[in-house]
Amino acid sequence: MSKHLILNAFLMSTGHHEASWRMPETDVTSYRDVTHYQRLAQVAERGKMDSVFFADSPSIFGVNLERRPAEAIEPALLLTAMAVATERIGLVATSSTTYEEPYNLARTFASLDAISHGRAGWNVVTTADLKAGANFGMTEAPSHAERYRRAEEFLEVVLGLWGGWRDDSTVADKQSGVFHDSARVDVLDHVGEHFRVRGPLNVGRSEQGHPVIVQAGSSVPGMALAAAYAEAVFTAQPSIDDGRAFYDELKAATRKAGRNPDHIKILPGLVPIIGSTEAEAKAIEQQLDDLVVLDHPLDQLSADIGIPVDEIDLDAPLPDDIRPASDIQGNRARYELVVKLARSDDLTVRQLLLKLGSGRGHRSFTGTPEQVADDIELWFTSGAADGFNIMPAVLPSGLEAFVDHVVPILRQRGLFRDDYTGTTLREHYGLPVPQPRVTRLEASA
Amino acid sequence: MSKHLILNAFLMSTGHHEASWRMPETDVTSYRDVTHYQRLAQVAERGKMDSVFFADSPSIFGVNLERRPAEAIEPALLLTAMAVATERIGLVATSSTTYEEPYNLARTFASLDAISHGRAGWNVVTTADLKAGANFGMTEAPSHAERYRRAEEFLEVVLGLWGGWRDDSTVADKQSGVFHDSARVDVLDHVGEHFRVRGPLNVGRSEQGHPVIVQAGSSVPGMALAAAYAEAVFTAQPSIDDGRAFYDELKAATRKAGRNPDHIKILPGLVPIIGSTEAEAKAIEQQLDDLVVLDHPLDQLSADIGIPVDEIDLDAPLPDDIRPASDIQGNRARYELVVKLARSDDLTVRQLLLKLGSGRGHRSFTGTPEQVADDIELWFTSGAADGFNIMPAVLPSGLEAFVDHVVPILRQRGLFRDDYTGTTLREHYGLPVPQPRVTRLEASA
Repeated sequence: MSKHLILNAFLMSTGHHEASWRMPETDVTSYRDVTHYQRLAQVAERGKMDSVFFADSPSIFGVNLERRPAEAIEPALLLTAMAVATERIGLVATSSTTYEEPYNLARTFASLDAISHGRAGWNVVTTADLKAGANFGMTEAPSHAERYRRAEEFLEVVLGLWGGWRDDSTVADKQSGVFHDSARVDVLDHVGEHFRVRGPLNVGRSEQGHPVIVQAGSSVPGMALAAAYAEAVFTAQPSIDDGRAFYDELKAATRKAGRNPDHIKILPGLVPIIGSTEAEAKAIEQQLDDLVVLDHPLDQLSADIGIPVDEIDLDAPLPDDIRPASDIQGNRARYELVVKLARSDDLTVRQLLLKLGSGRGHRSFTGTPEQVADDIELWFTSGAADGFNIMPAVLPSGLEAFVDHVVPILRQRGLFRDDYTGTTLREHYGLPVPQPRVTRLEASA
Repeated sequence: MSKHLILNAFLMSTGHHEASWRMPETDVTSYRDVTHYQRLAQVAERGKMDSVFFADSPSIFGVNLERRPAEAIEPALLLTAMAVATERIGLVATSSTTYEEPYNLARTFASLDAISHGRAGWNVVTTADLKAGANFGMTEAPSHAERYRRAEEFLEVVLGLWGGWRDDSTVADKQSGVFHDSARVDVLDHVGEHFRVRGPLNVGRSEQGHPVIVQAGSSVPGMALAAAYAEAVFTAQPSIDDGRAFYDELKAATRKAGRNPDHIKILPGLVPIIGSTEAEAKAIEQQLDDLVVLDHPLDQLSADIGIPVDEIDLDAPLPDDIRPASDIQGNRARYELVVKLARSDDLTVRQLLLKLGSGRGHRSFTGTPEQVADDIELWFTSGAADGFNIMPAVLPSGLEAFVDHVVPILRQRGLFRDDYTGTTLREHYGLPVPQPRVTRLEASA
């Protein structure tokens, strides 16, 4: 088999659908039960999927605690528990450059990479959410531009710390009594606008060199950061034409940044709702939508578009006089996506909110395993995606349905691996092992 | 059995002895192998010990990479891997109030507490090490006083975040569609000298309420912080008289701070070197000491006492003209301990360094299982300790010897539990479950 699809399992508590926890099948205690996550990782690994993936924010997600599980166990800890319950599958967590220290973050992900023998990935986000900023001393959110300037320097520091160790830094020679060779561990001595970090990091290289850099911003500065650093990009694309345009643009930008465009994998999100017949799939979707309480998403939309809740008609299209995208300091790409979704499909506000409730702006597809496989194949073969972040609406059932019924079809068609051929996330993704960044040599004294 | 000893297993890579990795028995790759730590936790749990414990610093420990494993996988991740490989044993990690954000730290430990169903503890340190500061933008270490002012506010924020959730905050009522009850999740809105943190935390209460607060500073401000907040204190005490004096002083200070002195457990460190005969134990000690390369500890001592290496005579006592303790902005309690150790036992510098090499200033005891048990019993029954942080010189063998040969003797004497009677760390330690801190109620809007 030549080049194949990448398939990540993007996991979220009881599922991505807003109402997943209200389904009769759902165990409402599972969202904070580590064995739930371990089992999900095992299901994804049974399907030979590339990785499991977590979103994250250091705050209570969204506007209201009432409508879905708001607790979120720290993803690096969850992935550690999943690492020791699996053998091969990659482990990707989101962490923010705005509310962490680069030394701590570099260490956490290098630790996950050590524990998992080279299966870790870091999804770099700049976290727009004002609620997060308020947990870190901020009285207003940093501007979009400032967040990205900090993110770039943050990445340089993290890559520099990771790159300070080499494959031969550790000697462990009992005879001579030398454990690490200090001439082969580089001090970083970074001094920049936001950070001053000496190093070296206290965790060395892993079997894949260092964690894979994933990125999820699709705004203009987000794409620039991706072109310069990202090895995989998670993106929300509402249609195949949008997907193709984004794919072409980002691959071109990556080439322009002097990098091999094959070394950046573009992975749109996809919420598959799967039934053995189309009617069964539609019935599951309807059941989920019927369980959505619209007050929370309506509050969120109202805040986004700058129009009070009581002036929004649920059964009319989105009003014309919404705020311009240029006013958004938060997640601008998401805002633009929501507006585009509403306008292009001519949705009522209610239809828009239900669509957002199923995968928070990501594309959903409802159908039989064959139909889901057709959709995935079409995007992949027509140059709109290198693979997908699969976002099951309900967990674990949605992931099980995907692994047991869609993956075998993709495999029959030669689009997906029969088994893992490597042991690291870089091997699964087909990415090169990064070389140590030898900035300068200095004995650590 | 009435009140019994507390026994923690303080773990460190290949063992606490500086030369542990050079022993013929040691697998030099174990220090970054998660299964090594999982097995150690299982050995400690087989012995029904109270907890496993990790020290930590966000830097390369000590002065020189050459002399022992300097890599240190993030302890909260290691403890997560150990949590899912065990059922009962407590899980305590050190983390610094100087180089972390309180929201992130509160979340990490609450996450470990959720994953382990109430077995987590946080050992609060203020991290004096200049090398750590240089990884976090500092060009000089913050003063001792400033570190403790920050630590106190940090603790208030963390306890406030943990205390924002109650046992009944999560309703998960499928019928009404209410997941968390926002009227039962408190916003913190902390505004202080160092921090401004709104909350609520995105992880709720555990089976033990929140993680146990452990503390390890034995300086004057360290003891004040312990008296106000600590539920367990880890301390280095060179003799039983020192131990008794410290015990009495801290229990009195805790009473004076308005707390029940039974709710602060005092746990000196102890490095047991165990042989089936006294001669065998002494031979193990000698073998370890013969493997120590003295350059690294000598550099460290030289930096501590402010006298150049080439002016120190290894076979003479510590010079008289060393710097006064009041000049130390770093770990002042440790400095005082080192000097006291040298002076009171009339040690040569070489003897002092070997003693420090075995447990970094903690008391070591070499003998048969009976003798080690006698020593522990004497300290416990004469009011010098509520238990011990057991620091095996070599891992795993030192922990196995303790669990298999010393613990059964302590059990026969009625000093230690036959089996766990509870499931949480608070239950093992005999500590009360903390109540939520209801500061004010506010719907999280």
